[in-house]
Amino acid sequence: MRILILNGPNLNLLGQREPGIYGAVSLAGLEDRCRAEAKALGLELGFAQSNHEGALVDALHDAQTNQDGVVLNAAAYTHGSIALRDAISAISVPVLELHLSNIHARESFRHHSMIAPVCIGVIAGLGPAGYPLAVRAMHDHLRAPAP
Amino acid sequence: MRILILNGPNLNLLGQREPGIYGAVSLAGLEDRCRAEAKALGLELGFAQSNHEGALVDALHDAQTNQDGVVLNAAAYTHGSIALRDAISAISVPVLELHLSNIHARESFRHHSMIAPVCIGVIAGLGPAGYPLAVRAMHDHLRAPAP
Amino acid sequence: MRILILNGPNLNLLGQREPGIYGAVSLAGLEDRCRAEAKALGLELGFAQSNHEGALVDALHDAQTNQDGVVLNAAAYTHGSIALRDAISAISVPVLELHLSNIHARESFRHHSMIAPVCIGVIAGLGPAGYPLAVRAMHDHLRAPAP
Amino acid sequence: MRILILNGPNLNLLGQREPGIYGAVSLAGLEDRCRAEAKALGLELGFAQSNHEGALVDALHDAQTNQDGVVLNAAAYTHGSIALRDAISAISVPVLELHLSNIHARESFRHHSMIAPVCIGVIAGLGPAGYPLAVRAMHDHLRAPAP
Amino acid sequence: MRILILNGPNLNLLGQREPGIYGAVSLAGLEDRCRAEAKALGLELGFAQSNHEGALVDALHDAQTNQDGVVLNAAAYTHGSIALRDAISAISVPVLELHLSNIHARESFRHHSMIAPVCIGVIAGLGPAGYPLAVRAMHDHLRAPAP
Amino acid sequence: MRILILNGPNLNLLGQREPGIYGAVSLAGLEDRCRAEAKALGLELGFAQSNHEGALVDALHDAQTNQDGVVLNAAAYTHGSIALRDAISAISVPVLELHLSNIHARESFRHHSMIAPVCIGVIAGLGPAGYPLAVRAMHDHLRAPAP
Amino acid sequence: MRILILNGPNLNLLGQREPGIYGAVSLAGLEDRCRAEAKALGLELGFAQSNHEGALVDALHDAQTNQDGVVLNAAAYTHGSIALRDAISAISVPVLELHLSNIHARESFRHHSMIAPVCIGVIAGLGPAGYPLAVRAMHDHLRAPAP
Amino acid sequence: MRILILNGPNLNLLGQREPGIYGAVSLAGLEDRCRAEAKALGLELGFAQSNHEGALVDALHDAQTNQDGVVLNAAAYTHGSIALRDAISAISVPVLELHLSNIHARESFRHHSMIAPVCIGVIAGLGPAGYPLAVRAMHDHLRAPAP
Amino acid sequence: MRILILNGPNLNLLGQREPGIYGAVSLAGLEDRCRAEAKALGLELGFAQSNHEGALVDALHDAQTNQDGVVLNAAAYTHGSIALRDAISAISVPVLELHLSNIHARESFRHHSMIAPVCIGVIAGLGPAGYPLAVRAMHDHLRAPAP
Amino acid sequence: MRILILNGPNLNLLGQREPGIYGAVSLAGLEDRCRAEAKALGLELGFAQSNHEGALVDALHDAQTNQDGVVLNAAAYTHGSIALRDAISAISVPVLELHLSNIHARESFRHHSMIAPVCIGVIAGLGPAGYPLAVRAMHDHLRAPAP
Amino acid sequence: MRILILNGPNLNLLGQREPGIYGAVSLAGLEDRCRAEAKALGLELGFAQSNHEGALVDALHDAQTNQDGVVLNAAAYTHGSIALRDAISAISVPVLELHLSNIHARESFRHHSMIAPVCIGVIAGLGPAGYPLAVRAMHDHLRAPAP
Amino acid sequence: MRILILNGPNLNLLGQREPGIYGAVSLAGLEDRCRAEAKALGLELGFAQSNHEGALVDALHDAQTNQDGVVLNAAAYTHGSIALRDAISAISVPVLELHLSNIHARESFRHHSMIAPVCIGVIAGLGPAGYPLAVRAMHDHLRAPAP
Repeated sequence: MRILILNGPNLNLLGQREPGIYGAVSLAGLEDRCRAEAKALGLELGFAQSNHEGALVDALHDAQTNQDGVVLNAAAYTHGSIALRDAISAISVPVLELHLSNIHARESFRHHSMIAPVCIGVIAGLGPAGYPLAVRAMHDHLRAPAP
Repeated sequence: MRILILNGPNLNLLGQREPGIYGAVSLAGLEDRCRAEAKALGLELGFAQSNHEGALVDALHDAQTNQDGVVLNAAAYTHGSIALRDAISAISVPVLELHLSNIHARESFRHHSMIAPVCIGVIAGLGPAGYPLAVRAMHDHLRAPAP
Repeated sequence: MRILILNGPNLNLLGQREPGIYGAVSLAGLEDRCRAEAKALGLELGFAQSNHEGALVDALHDAQTNQDGVVLNAAAYTHGSIALRDAISAISVPVLELHLSNIHARESFRHHSMIAPVCIGVIAGLGPAGYPLAVRAMHDHLRAPAP
Repeated sequence: MRILILNGPNLNLLGQREPGIYGAVSLAGLEDRCRAEAKALGLELGFAQSNHEGALVDALHDAQTNQDGVVLNAAAYTHGSIALRDAISAISVPVLELHLSNIHARESFRHHSMIAPVCIGVIAGLGPAGYPLAVRAMHDHLRAPAP
Repeated sequence: MRILILNGPNLNLLGQREPGIYGAVSLAGLEDRCRAEAKALGLELGFAQSNHEGALVDALHDAQTNQDGVVLNAAAYTHGSIALRDAISAISVPVLELHLSNIHARESFRHHSMIAPVCIGVIAGLGPAGYPLAVRAMHDHLRAPAP
Repeated sequence: MRILILNGPNLNLLGQREPGIYGAVSLAGLEDRCRAEAKALGLELGFAQSNHEGALVDALHDAQTNQDGVVLNAAAYTHGSIALRDAISAISVPVLELHLSNIHARESFRHHSMIAPVCIGVIAGLGPAGYPLAVRAMHDHLRAPAP
Repeated sequence: MRILILNGPNLNLLGQREPGIYGAVSLAGLEDRCRAEAKALGLELGFAQSNHEGALVDALHDAQTNQDGVVLNAAAYTHGSIALRDAISAISVPVLELHLSNIHARESFRHHSMIAPVCIGVIAGLGPAGYPLAVRAMHDHLRAPAP
Repeated sequence: MRILILNGPNLNLLGQREPGIYGAVSLAGLEDRCRAEAKALGLELGFAQSNHEGALVDALHDAQTNQDGVVLNAAAYTHGSIALRDAISAISVPVLELHLSNIHARESFRHHSMIAPVCIGVIAGLGPAGYPLAVRAMHDHLRAPAP
Repeated sequence: MRILILNGPNLNLLGQREPGIYGAVSLAGLEDRCRAEAKALGLELGFAQSNHEGALVDALHDAQTNQDGVVLNAAAYTHGSIALRDAISAISVPVLELHLSNIHARESFRHHSMIAPVCIGVIAGLGPAGYPLAVRAMHDHLRAPAP
Repeated sequence: MRILILNGPNLNLLGQREPGIYGAVSLAGLEDRCRAEAKALGLELGFAQSNHEGALVDALHDAQTNQDGVVLNAAAYTHGSIALRDAISAISVPVLELHLSNIHARESFRHHSMIAPVCIGVIAGLGPAGYPLAVRAMHDHLRAPAP
Repeated sequence: MRILILNGPNLNLLGQREPGIYGAVSLAGLEDRCRAEAKALGLELGFAQSNHEGALVDALHDAQTNQDGVVLNAAAYTHGSIALRDAISAISVPVLELHLSNIHARESFRHHSMIAPVCIGVIAGLGPAGYPLAVRAMHDHLRAPAP
Repeated sequence: MRILILNGPNLNLLGQREPGIYGAVSLAGLEDRCRAEAKALGLELGFAQSNHEGALVDALHDAQTNQDGVVLNAAAYTHGSIALRDAISAISVPVLELHLSNIHARESFRHHSMIAPVCIGVIAGLGPAGYPLAVRAMHDHLRAPAP
């Protein structure tokens, strides 16, 4: 079982960027936490990050052949990217939406998710702890999908 | 560490009610899954369900003295209940929002959550697997809150 | 064949309450008219009224095992109660929406019905005469459902 | 006592048109059911159908002198025709709004009725059974108008 | 100089229809007032009324060859008829919008005029007196158009 | 019989200001046309113009004791001034709304009139010819008010 | 003269709940202030609080026979409860709307009051001092109603 | 194979009407172009035009028995006619939406098409060249429908 | 302690203006009631009224040095004046919003207050009795501000 | 004459991606159909596809010097990309908007096209057949532009 | 070359008013900075400030004959004053919009500028430094207008 | 002191692209003007342009270590790019928003800026002259930030 952790724009700056909102853990730190969880669950993980909407679309296309599931923190592209939504619909690999912050407690333009309707579910607001939790959630889903 | 699993209207019918959306597991079945997770994590759990908005407000008030955290599936009251929102704000116990279905993939009146801005985060769309995951998420949060 | 006549908030004051809008007949008077119609059609009727949204949800749940159909005047809860809507969806007993006044001729917040999409139909604006008519409509529906 | 059953656009195709929504009964079949009810109640009925908004306005004007009441299924013109609304206001004959399908369970542009505020009431979603029911409702109304 | 007075739906009922809003003067009475004014100004007048949107479009097309100006009380079709708007744009004869009642003091769906942007101007709310005034206004306009 | 011609902001620049929209006639020129019409009708006229919303309110208050009617071109204050609206409601002298240009054919923020609902009617889009026409309209109204 | 002070959801937590918004005075403390004012004015007071919308409706119904006026702090139910609005309309006892905080200076969903149109007036934002003030206002109103 | 070219309001004035928008070709000219294309493809064509919404509904009903496909330029009725939409749904003959001008580059009320969701597709903005192209498109569709 | 009673547009006509809404008491009468209350409380009062938005801004600026509090009935300027809002923010003297009528029971454009978020609170709908009550409320606030 | 067929995001997956919506033909298959049509018309074709908005902008810039026309299926970027719109405006080469599916029959966020106002026209909903048709349409346009 | 620096409501309080937003520099201080810049550029400056919308309109009218350009900080009147917009359109002197604070980073009612479409451009958010910058910008514009 | 001049999509075509809106100066010409200003102020400048949203995000990230300030003309990405907004928030280098044209005088979708709230200010509508002005504004800001 292989899961891709795919991160969107500005997440490469984690730890430096607005720590009051996003916490002090770097992206590498998050990946370490995911690896620890994956090891416990017997999973392989892949990691990718891009600030380019098109590169995220490409990565989702690639996941179709290389991955069993995707955990996607689409960050700023969450709210308006129909291209990402269509890419998720176009592949048969399940995608789980993830956010570090509670997007519903922030500016109103972050309340709507364009990709949520084509994801299997969403985890938001749990900070760094949300990453290993999402790995576990995808693992559980791949073993027994929700109705 | 003690966590209340608080369920809102119509969740008493789980297993019978629209299984295409909510799955075939009963509320008692969900509680069993939570208990298994809680045991593994060394937690105590409380359970409550009501179809009455006021009773859910009362339960949140009681949680202030009896619980360390609340996992709340407010169901139909999620989208419009300012009373629940105010109750969550009024207590200092952290509350995690939980949904069986992916509310963003359903009717538009289910897309907005009135309580999300005062919860620590949200887990949605993972079906029965979301319940033990929420127990774990609250456990992790109580040990190390997100920023 | 058994039909529940379920009335929502403030309908206990019928006859006293804004008679220009709701007429001079009391709730007991309406029940008498329903009984006369039921007798003619060979039906049994049940009656319930509550000002509590949760109690109406409970009553709908109970109808699942005790009734063949429900005539529901949800009154003020018609326009915003997702809990009632979900309760109607959760049971397999057909529900007919009923209003004394023509809700579309009143304030705009009364124009939208949250429950209409999950009811079999609606009768509105016919005053007290709507009650026995609704009993007959449910009777006809139970014998030959519309497409 | 004389009642006009006035049908709007596309209802001439009943039985052929989208039977999943409108049922398998033809317009002639509906008229037969109305006649049976009218006979039981001692009423005379008139029937008219047109695909032309102006012709329906003309028919309402004529009803002023020839009819005691009108049962109007304005179909597609229900939602936007101010001309029909004004025609109903312009005559003193009471008009009852009727729909085969539950318009509130369909596309959003069918949720609003332009004519409802000037009709005495509405019956919707009961399929063919709604027609004789509407005849009876108008009969009852003419004998004892609601407040 | 020849001017058409073109009246839309339900105006054939003037004098009978809602006299509190539209006054007690019949359409024939209005035409008499227009004729008096026209005589004083040395104009010829034509008169037409229809409840059919298409017939009003046809009449506007005919005006292109037969009239120098049109005074149009489009009544209910004022607010939504793109067909009338396009017909007015399609002809080179100037059209003046006229209403008996003050449409801005009535229901909100009467506040917007679909045809105003393609008319030379509007006179509204002056009751029967508005008709001869509109004749005079069109007369003045044909002699000296506004910028 | 005495009528006040009250003009709002920027109308003092008429003739200079955007002649493509407002024409080449100055305010003094408009007043001359009104005087000619008034003379023919045996009326006395008053004239006032201000760029200050408060001064227009004051002028309407004064009209209560000094005038029989007011022709008001409120210009830019037409669309949002509740103070003018309340002033018109507060006095018993009838007020006629006047515009040189067809406000419905311009920017959308000019389509709504805050004062229309409390005026007796509106004349718009007829350019300079609208002023003497409005004098005549008010004269006719004072002799025989519309219903 | 007898006045009911009726408090809605979460007000039982006053003094503990968000003191930055609601102040440090408990509900009992507020009642003491009201009693002092009532004593000075020669009034009798009743007190009730509930987190249940239906219970507040019941309390308003009871007020019809037991009270001369009601001071209602409907809290979270202020903004959306049609049931409370209908209950206030259904009784002839005057109701005064009261809020501790200035609801217009808070989140936008608190800006609209569903009950204001059927209350005699509103006092908001004055904190604990608003309670005795409301008692006095109702006392004055019962002696000399506003127009 | 037989295709109806059905044209809506004001298209009878083509060539005269706003040539900057609609071009200098008359309706007869367009029909000639269609005939040339049809001849090349071995099709029979029918032609109809009306300014009456009801007549267009009637024509669509007739197409059910006489035609294999319809190319419909509904013109002004495109944007709001539910009657046309229902007529298209009611028949099993495929309908292709056609416009001379690019409706999305014009006024906002022309941006929405009420009939598009029930048509097989749309061709817009290509001027007279769009007519023979639409004939070809319907021909291709009838031979091999899109998914 | 010195409090300014500042009244906005059209309030100079009180007693004459729409007495069904604003009552029969003149502005001078209101001032007398305020003086009586002020005397009982040992306060000095100032009074000002203007129909000019700018004059009200000036008066608020002056209050900064001359007054301890302001009771402001901004009337028509309540709903849209950002200038008044900014003036209230710019001074450190507390301002209490006051209305004679219940603005929430009137036209929708009166439901929103632009100044409420920067005032300490609001009293509305109590008629003339609201004025002395507001004096008392400001007195109480100056002695013990709400949180 | 040289035409670029430019395809946007996710169209590289055609044939695999949601075949119920987009059909079973691959992008290569579509290109073959275009080549066949181009050969018949004596045209040269270019082909490009990208998931990157910026790359599509670059391709449009390049078309300025290399192409006579562009057929653009902007897919997900159709609905919100101002960058594509500006690129189309910035070049003098005509662009035709193309869609496989009928975007007006799908989710509402697909109903609006940001690029339509700057394209010469649109072809939508005809599936694979739309591609050669668009080639022909551009060919015809280049020989004789619509008004 | 002569430029007017025209300031709107509440700017007379600069330095005292909300210094966190508007800075600690007084209006006189800003004028000194402008004079220094003007001296360097060889310009003459005029200064005016008013809290009255009408006075600002008057000042713009006067600028027509006395000034070559206007730098306008309309403050609170920026967002809704059609009178100011019309005044700017009515004169041929160019006007530059200026704001101390970044209006787009504040409350939503400050995001829209009614005057921007008729100004040559806008400078906002640069604090006191924006004033001399605006003088320089107007100077540059008068020497070489943007396209 | 080092400032980056960062230009977004389609600005590489300046001078060729819609010169009526954007002027006849090329991007190289603008850079020359900036260099002249920078030399006078003793600044170093960097320049970058991209049509790719992701590349602009990357450039902002790089500015964090290489630049003291950024002048950003985000062009089409101004209005909807949350990714750019988040990038600006993520870095501590101040960013000034710049536009050649007056975006508020163009289509409504250009009126809203997604990035304005996180920029220090905005300069718009001044054409090529805006570039050196922005360099100066950033220089002034870096020496003395606004409050």
